[in-house]
Amino acid sequence: MIFASDNWAGAHPAIASALSDNTHGFAPAYGNSLLDRRVEQRFRDIFERDVAVFFVATGTAANALSLTAVNKAGGVCFTHSEAHVIADECGAPEYFTGGARLVPVEGPLSRIDPARLDEAIRRYSADFIHAGRPMAVSITQATESGTVYGLDHIAAIGKVCREHGVPLHMDGARFANALVRLGCSPAEMSWRSGVDILSFGGTKNGCWCAEAIVIFDPDKARDMPYLRKRAAQLFSKSRFVAAQFDAYFENGLWLSLARHANSMTERLAAHVEVSGRLRLAWKTEANEAFIVMSDTTRDELKNAGVVFNPWHAGANAALAPGEAIYRFVTSFATTAEEIDQFGKLIA
Amino acid sequence: MIFASDNWAGAHPAIASALSDNTHGFAPAYGNSLLDRRVEQRFRDIFERDVAVFFVATGTAANALSLTAVNKAGGVCFTHSEAHVIADECGAPEYFTGGARLVPVEGPLSRIDPARLDEAIRRYSADFIHAGRPMAVSITQATESGTVYGLDHIAAIGKVCREHGVPLHMDGARFANALVRLGCSPAEMSWRSGVDILSFGGTKNGCWCAEAIVIFDPDKARDMPYLRKRAAQLFSKSRFVAAQFDAYFENGLWLSLARHANSMTERLAAHVEVSGRLRLAWKTEANEAFIVMSDTTRDELKNAGVVFNPWHAGANAALAPGEAIYRFVTSFATTAEEIDQFGKLIA
Amino acid sequence: MIFASDNWAGAHPAIASALSDNTHGFAPAYGNSLLDRRVEQRFRDIFERDVAVFFVATGTAANALSLTAVNKAGGVCFTHSEAHVIADECGAPEYFTGGARLVPVEGPLSRIDPARLDEAIRRYSADFIHAGRPMAVSITQATESGTVYGLDHIAAIGKVCREHGVPLHMDGARFANALVRLGCSPAEMSWRSGVDILSFGGTKNGCWCAEAIVIFDPDKARDMPYLRKRAAQLFSKSRFVAAQFDAYFENGLWLSLARHANSMTERLAAHVEVSGRLRLAWKTEANEAFIVMSDTTRDELKNAGVVFNPWHAGANAALAPGEAIYRFVTSFATTAEEIDQFGKLIA
Amino acid sequence: MIFASDNWAGAHPAIASALSDNTHGFAPAYGNSLLDRRVEQRFRDIFERDVAVFFVATGTAANALSLTAVNKAGGVCFTHSEAHVIADECGAPEYFTGGARLVPVEGPLSRIDPARLDEAIRRYSADFIHAGRPMAVSITQATESGTVYGLDHIAAIGKVCREHGVPLHMDGARFANALVRLGCSPAEMSWRSGVDILSFGGTKNGCWCAEAIVIFDPDKARDMPYLRKRAAQLFSKSRFVAAQFDAYFENGLWLSLARHANSMTERLAAHVEVSGRLRLAWKTEANEAFIVMSDTTRDELKNAGVVFNPWHAGANAALAPGEAIYRFVTSFATTAEEIDQFGKLIA
Repeated sequence: MIFASDNWAGAHPAIASALSDNTHGFAPAYGNSLLDRRVEQRFRDIFERDVAVFFVATGTAANALSLTAVNKAGGVCFTHSEAHVIADECGAPEYFTGGARLVPVEGPLSRIDPARLDEAIRRYSADFIHAGRPMAVSITQATESGTVYGLDHIAAIGKVCREHGVPLHMDGARFANALVRLGCSPAEMSWRSGVDILSFGGTKNGCWCAEAIVIFDPDKARDMPYLRKRAAQLFSKSRFVAAQFDAYFENGLWLSLARHANSMTERLAAHVEVSGRLRLAWKTEANEAFIVMSDTTRDELKNAGVVFNPWHAGANAALAPGEAIYRFVTSFATTAEEIDQFGKLIA
Repeated sequence: MIFASDNWAGAHPAIASALSDNTHGFAPAYGNSLLDRRVEQRFRDIFERDVAVFFVATGTAANALSLTAVNKAGGVCFTHSEAHVIADECGAPEYFTGGARLVPVEGPLSRIDPARLDEAIRRYSADFIHAGRPMAVSITQATESGTVYGLDHIAAIGKVCREHGVPLHMDGARFANALVRLGCSPAEMSWRSGVDILSFGGTKNGCWCAEAIVIFDPDKARDMPYLRKRAAQLFSKSRFVAAQFDAYFENGLWLSLARHANSMTERLAAHVEVSGRLRLAWKTEANEAFIVMSDTTRDELKNAGVVFNPWHAGANAALAPGEAIYRFVTSFATTAEEIDQFGKLIA
Repeated sequence: MIFASDNWAGAHPAIASALSDNTHGFAPAYGNSLLDRRVEQRFRDIFERDVAVFFVATGTAANALSLTAVNKAGGVCFTHSEAHVIADECGAPEYFTGGARLVPVEGPLSRIDPARLDEAIRRYSADFIHAGRPMAVSITQATESGTVYGLDHIAAIGKVCREHGVPLHMDGARFANALVRLGCSPAEMSWRSGVDILSFGGTKNGCWCAEAIVIFDPDKARDMPYLRKRAAQLFSKSRFVAAQFDAYFENGLWLSLARHANSMTERLAAHVEVSGRLRLAWKTEANEAFIVMSDTTRDELKNAGVVFNPWHAGANAALAPGEAIYRFVTSFATTAEEIDQFGKLIA
Repeated sequence: MIFASDNWAGAHPAIASALSDNTHGFAPAYGNSLLDRRVEQRFRDIFERDVAVFFVATGTAANALSLTAVNKAGGVCFTHSEAHVIADECGAPEYFTGGARLVPVEGPLSRIDPARLDEAIRRYSADFIHAGRPMAVSITQATESGTVYGLDHIAAIGKVCREHGVPLHMDGARFANALVRLGCSPAEMSWRSGVDILSFGGTKNGCWCAEAIVIFDPDKARDMPYLRKRAAQLFSKSRFVAAQFDAYFENGLWLSLARHANSMTERLAAHVEVSGRLRLAWKTEANEAFIVMSDTTRDELKNAGVVFNPWHAGANAALAPGEAIYRFVTSFATTAEEIDQFGKLIA
């Protein structure tokens, strides 16, 4: 019973096969193969517009390069204090940008409050260069708390961004999980709601290693080939990423996998809610559940072979002494049997 | 007839299969799986000593992070003017190090002359901080000219490094091709000859995406986990690299593939030597041939479907008007039939 | 009546004269003159130990280079949210360090709470490299709120630093103002209380341009000559800084100037306390007063020619509608007459 | 007899006095005083057009920030191998730009050959991002070899720059020395010949610390306030630089000082030419002479109290065994008596 992270899963068989099937033959390197081109077209189809697409090695790279592409001297990026760019990237955004600053903006359950965002940006004035200047807003969809920004919420943030002339970045490491929750189109959840640049993740949802930067205005993508290469993120055998995305998108596999992952978390949450011993820290909407339990229960579950991790950003739930919050993540590879086995354990 | 680059090949079937076979099941992320550990042990076995190993996304990343690990303020790295770090990485070493300088040191056929290296390093004095200070020497094995440093040559460079207290880095993007040419052990071609840190490449020799930084003194590797993560080079599903290396090393596959690639270049060179119309620009030792031909011949070959590229760093060969140098690269995927077909074309 | 900032004052006549007197004659450049050496010795005398001293152009440079000297990959520096390094340096610390992060730690009146500091540092674990790692703590003495850390307070912070193996930096842009308030020795207010590296400011206290980095363990200063030169902070005619410091230290001028500046703020505060219309936002201890007044009063004072600025970091005082906090700064150049003239205005 | 460097001189009395005279009174900080504004206007008058002016601490800062202002990802700056930016700035340009590369272009006596420059730039193609891309050309006027670019020479380089869409930077640490040699206007020697951005130096020609970045198209200067502040180069008491420049420009003092310095080198050269024991390595045009002498003569002169330094970039002169090249620099502070005393010594 592995709930440690969706990146503990391997690759989906269809994606692994696609990769194997592309093993043979020669193809231009560095993103110039026909397969690379075809997958770029798939992105355009999915997003219903011309976009510029750049494969990179990791979600951290997608985020850090996205912010580098829009950074300016003295640049400040506003993001939630629990965002991956702040909490989990060892300073990669600051490093890639050559020293931009991430300024936290709060809001319940890892979602930025648009009013607070507006207030935070207003603190910076062109008359006072000493403080630096806004260069981006970054939101995470789905968030690190397993919640999802609704379309109105994104649009409200997008509006604040446009009013201040600041581009909006979306960290979509779990883009698919949020998308199927909202039941909207990729276009609606991104550029139609004001997103300018997107980190599009495939790795957590069934790929081995498939991440992409999507720039919705291709005119603004002219520097990215240099930014990516300079950051050592241009794969020579780029088609090994393309092949994964190709299978990922085929017949809507990516959506099916995300739906499955989300439903496994729902099933898990249902077990938790009927158990007397555990409770949900808050209601989540994607493929992560945050569960409150006592140390005794935690040890019991660990001894029974359940793998999961404590969650430190727990300002969002009230805890009794001896209780703590734990994160449970489900993925395309989680099975209903596994969940029900866990349900029995906690019944 | 594809001779554009060894990175136009796909993956060797055994490596692709190993990757597919590891698709299922869960495993700790970020390099902590059993498979990651087993492959690290393979590196120790191969190099006959304790080493620290770090998988990264690209050869450029391996080089740039290796140099970052040893850089100092005002740092200068000495390398051949034709080295990949200078010619082909879009400034990644300078970017990752935050501004180190690459100072070219010459020598015939892309190999650094140890005497010139010594002279170049001596120009820097602790009394004159304005010039900066030596922080590394980087050699490429096999070189960008298809040549190979002999063990004595590496040792001579290693001696200069030690005399000046400067670490020696080896860019081993084609480590295997050089190794089988020399017929020595990996230990002999690296740390026993004075190499401190190695970019060990698998991608050009049959992997999809398998590069590693090998630090021969693990005590000096303590910062690398942070350096790598900060540079967005830590794969979450790291085992997809480990699985490739596992198959790569199994039963000496890597050596067989390199031997094959080298022998294909030898076969190609033999065809060139007997043809009246082409000639070798210089004798090579690994899996690249540099061929002089007229523009007419070039066009003829291109029209016949031969894919190859011009070579700009051609200071090493005398050319007649209307002649130029072209690079032909063979790989694990090149076949004798393909070579012989080319031989017929130029006969 | 100029209370905008202590950097609106010019230079003290004795310092200006010393500079003029050193105009003639030749002297080795780049900090190698006898005068430079003599002033370095003065620093050793003042701090009662061997120290390494490096002149730089600005306080921002002193801070940014100090943090660069101790930074590591993934490095995090803890400092108060109102500190100059966060609020007023346009990201220079992040830029110079190549992307370190400044993490705010709160405490009343711009002084870090040692318990919160300990808690903040403890969040970082060597087992979780994704979050980065502590590399420094930086405190401002006197603070941006005009308060002063007591010796016990500094020692408590120093103790937390040592327990976690993290160096302690002091931004001493107003070192002298704090020192004369505490009435202790420079050694007591710095290394004897656990400070490892100090930005020692002279500019705000009567110099034109005299800032120095003081490293209390000279063995840890070996990289600083390169760091400083690489950051374009090594003056060729370095003695123009040395001459200023020479006069600054002569006969305790620096202490007299700081005492004067502080006493002018006290005199100003006394006037405020007896006026019915203004009040102190909080009690200060150095050369800055923070004054609450209505918009009407503000406009009246401005019209009367009083120059002062609003203060945004006003979480520390309760305000009525139509009120705001304003910062008044006095300096060596402020006169009692000017203060009393202001006193009459507000009576 | 001090010929070590023009930065061994102090400040000209008129400049020192102007600084002292500005000691009293208050003025807005950070470059906003009336004096700052007046001096900016002086720059506009001198250059006969609107310009943006930014004072900085050192010539290295002026150069490094100028190049940072025009840098791009993968950026390459072309400059002479003997240029100050390459030889004497400890990697500051690379550091400030976050890793741009300086690519040497040769030409006799430290002057870039326009044809070689064109050839060097042409090697970079938008089709091959791996090599990086041109971002600037930087020339030094007067050069490190004491020579001066003629107007036609600058214009020829400017033409190459425009053809390739690359901005032209001039390192004018010795701008005045070159200007009076050519006898042209500042406008002619800069923007009228194609220079886009200028490091304008006052320090070597009689100021204590007065360097400025001059951007000839103010529309392109919008980021510079942030770039400068982020680089810790914004002086709070900025008027101490302004006061120096004010006196420097008053009544053409700067031109007189440069004429004097140049004439002192001419006088020195005349003595050398009639002495039997020394000879000029090459003919110079500004305030530096490069002199060939034997080790014996060198020791003799040193013992007689003459201060001067060896010159390493001596590829430009033929030397006999036991001979070497030495640099002699004169300044505004050098006297004819001192030169003639030296003349007697070598007679």
